Amino acid sequence: MSESLFVGVDLGGTAIKVGLCNATGDLLRTYEGPTQTADGADAVLSNIAAYVKVLVPPGTPEWEAVAGVGIGIAGFLDIPNGIINFSPNLPFKDVPAKQIMEEKIGKPVKINNDANVAALGEAWGGAGKNIPHCVCYTLGTGVGGGIILHDRLIEGYTGMAGELGHMSIVPDLEAIQCGCGKMGCLETVSSATGIIRMAKDAVDRGDKTTLTFVEEEMTAKHVFDAAKAGDEVAQRIVSRAAYYLGKSMAAVAVVVNPQRFIVGGGVSKAGEYLFEQIREVFHKLTPENAREGVEIVAAELGNNAGVVGAAGLFLRA
Amino acid sequence: MSESLFVGVDLGGTAIKVGLCNATGDLLRTYEGPTQTADGADAVLSNIAAYVKVLVPPGTPEWEAVAGVGIGIAGFLDIPNGIINFSPNLPFKDVPAKQIMEEKIGKPVKINNDANVAALGEAWGGAGKNIPHCVCYTLGTGVGGGIILHDRLIEGYTGMAGELGHMSIVPDLEAIQCGCGKMGCLETVSSATGIIRMAKDAVDRGDKTTLTFVEEEMTAKHVFDAAKAGDEVAQRIVSRAAYYLGKSMAAVAVVVNPQRFIVGGGVSKAGEYLFEQIREVFHKLTPENAREGVEIVAAELGNNAGVVGAAGLFLRA
Repeated sequence: MSESLFVGVDLGGTAIKVGLCNATGDLLRTYEGPTQTADGADAVLSNIAAYVKVLVPPGTPEWEAVAGVGIGIAGFLDIPNGIINFSPNLPFKDVPAKQIMEEKIGKPVKINNDANVAALGEAWGGAGKNIPHCVCYTLGTGVGGGIILHDRLIEGYTGMAGELGHMSIVPDLEAIQCGCGKMGCLETVSSATGIIRMAKDAVDRGDKTTLTFVEEEMTAKHVFDAAKAGDEVAQRIVSRAAYYLGKSMAAVAVVVNPQRFIVGGGVSKAGEYLFEQIREVFHKLTPENAREGVEIVAAELGNNAGVVGAAGLFLRA
Repeated sequence: MSESLFVGVDLGGTAIKVGLCNATGDLLRTYEGPTQTADGADAVLSNIAAYVKVLVPPGTPEWEAVAGVGIGIAGFLDIPNGIINFSPNLPFKDVPAKQIMEEKIGKPVKINNDANVAALGEAWGGAGKNIPHCVCYTLGTGVGGGIILHDRLIEGYTGMAGELGHMSIVPDLEAIQCGCGKMGCLETVSSATGIIRMAKDAVDRGDKTTLTFVEEEMTAKHVFDAAKAGDEVAQRIVSRAAYYLGKSMAAVAVVVNPQRFIVGGGVSKAGEYLFEQIREVFHKLTPENAREGVEIVAAELGNNAGVVGAAGLFLRA
């Protein structure tokens, strides 16, 4: 085989997903197995090696064509040296993962954080394919992000580039404290957690809303469904989440001027109802030259963004 | 001569400044002559060529070592094709400046906009020397900016990267309209124009301030001097300008995570009095990992930033 192939690893707290990509970001196939965190760091790393070798059996022409293995991990990483300093859901403490994995697999290994890797996956092989300047938002429990310029992931001085959820965007008088300790971060209003909090606050203070009758645990989907059905309280909550997303994109637009914003994560499943509101705010707050031709679109790869982006670390980081 | 040299041109409405740089961003010497805009575009371009040849006489070993000539221009440019579409202070309308200048000089030519070029100059040869990730602010009549990542100027999809003056930063209820047509842009409060406007508004509405007694035309310096002398109205104006600058830097910090912010332009002459207030806001609004070790410093090159950055276009853009 003359074309190089790349393996991506999405290392999660319960499952490890591995995937094989070609050099243009197409995902050829995946394999998945349990993480088994209870067995410790070395067992987890051995599991990764085992699953990679199931995905691409050593000795085959495909194995020979694999140019590298990238791994996406949630945690605090020393990316240049390939060390996992700490991970909230994994049994790693100052583990030289890159070096250990290179010994176990016999291929070059790179590690990077999971949000960056997912953004890179969408930009390289998903909704940003062939678009050199993309900015990705992931709207889940928090708000994650990633910046891709000239087809490459931007990490910044300390790896904090693309930490869009912690942009101070809510004015002081309306701000609440974020999990990070700061006031007014984007993720206090535009994450699933933020939307649920605003809905619960409305119910608690007795606002007239159909959300009062949600019997199971409240989710962001309940809020979107109520808003789409005409509930004014729910509509205001969605407007607020959309407003600050659009405002943060307007700020991003005059910093790095991307061609495309890609929005993924659970909250993005609200679809065009949410996207239209984001676009309206973005249009109002962005200079014409930085918004003409700029699209705000949904992510395409879903749960596969992590493996695709991890595979892309060798070409795009 | 074995080392390559680079010529930078700062094309202004009244004067053309040309400078010779080595490959590490040191400015070896400059020459300056009148623009003579009244004679039309071709005459202006011929003047550039003439001044470049005074700076580095053709036939000398230095001339042979010149690898390219970069030009910084205020206006709307088609950068990849080297065309000046329109310039507010120069007689250019859809002029293929790159092509014409290459014919006149016999060296490769690049053009770019003056704000980007000045930022690149500071980052390459000034206050950002040896710092790969820098963001520059120029606080003058407006607020200009430039983003340098991995030692290279970021232009973005339509060349709008680094247009920091048009970040929507003032909350709606306090926002006024910017010259660009949008509401609440950073430059409505943090440019010299914005500071002077706030001071005149205070005087007009009868606020108790020593600024009432400014007899000549009001400048930003009057406002800073009054603030330093204890005038509370002037202090509030400076605080407001500094607050939104710090807040915009906090936003930039989670987008591209620079190591250094470099602040130049006339307003920056207010010095540490202004810088300390900006740093305080930046510290409060930026996540710890994106602010540790990050410096906010004064620009160093002054009026030479333009020629140095223009020379750097061949290495850093």
